[in-house]
Amino acid sequence: MARSLEEIGDGWTLLVLRNALLGARRFQDFEQTLRIPPNTLSRRLDALVEHGMLVRRAYEERPPRDEYELTAKGLDLAPVLLALSAWGNRWLAPRGEVIVCADRATGRRVHPVVVDRRTRRELIAGRVALRAGPGASSALRKALRKSVPFGPVPPRGVGRARLGGEP
Amino acid sequence: MARSLEEIGDGWTLLVLRNALLGARRFQDFEQTLRIPPNTLSRRLDALVEHGMLVRRAYEERPPRDEYELTAKGLDLAPVLLALSAWGNRWLAPRGEVIVCADRATGRRVHPVVVDRRTRRELIAGRVALRAGPGASSALRKALRKSVPFGPVPPRGVGRARLGGEP
Repeated sequence: MARSLEEIGDGWTLLVLRNALLGARRFQDFEQTLRIPPNTLSRRLDALVEHGMLVRRAYEERPPRDEYELTAKGLDLAPVLLALSAWGNRWLAPRGEVIVCADRATGRRVHPVVVDRRTRRELIAGRVALRAGPGASSALRKALRKSVPFGPVPPRGVGRARLGGEP
Repeated sequence: MARSLEEIGDGWTLLVLRNALLGARRFQDFEQTLRIPPNTLSRRLDALVEHGMLVRRAYEERPPRDEYELTAKGLDLAPVLLALSAWGNRWLAPRGEVIVCADRATGRRVHPVVVDRRTRRELIAGRVALRAGPGASSALRKALRKSVPFGPVPPRGVGRARLGGEP
């Protein structure tokens, strides 16, 4: 998680990425909608290219002009951002939902939820246990060992009813 | 998205939140596993309380001691973070997966994916259209209008095969 957030965790970087997902490709596409200083935009685009989220491609030789295309890695982040905006719609949008998702083929409204790939059952706090994988740092291993065996402590009180609590 | 990231988008804040999800409640629980300067930890905990992700509760009168409990809002972010760590496992973990999720009841491995709540169909880039909701800012409205009607431009080439492309 922490490493993932490090790659995307700057507000501007995320906005650039969001606009790429909305179809922005050229420098001016990003510039027009983001109202971001050109230098800042360049740096963000460079960072996203460096992290392998975008690839840069020349679409004109003279004058030299680049466009930016999402990589598989960048595209694969889209569902996470949809789940994040659904959370934001639930908790941070007093004036109503900010972004609404629909199925592109049918136009029907969709609501992003996180489930297990196999069972399609919703993954909610208290139902999921976390274990260290082979790539875990020693600090993370320690945090996981110290937590109640096999996962986070189910919360007392707050939010239990809403989120379903124990399976 | 941007607003969501603003609330959680600092590496330390996210780590504190992660540890809360792993069962940390008391100052020293966080301190021991995070190796974070006490001042920084206090500020992060305060920020999470202020944003309504944690509540502070006294568990001892003398000396006064607090513990921190996740709110419904904080707990509701857990699935998003699971989806984010699955992305991190796929793209940022050259030495193997960092965190592995399991069903707490059965111990069986689970793989977080983002689906539509109703159809349980995976939401992937190119299949989902985004529209402005009532709470959208004018900048976001503009970005959404400028994008190809009804959603992001499906990507050319890169990642198409892997991610499924058009429905």
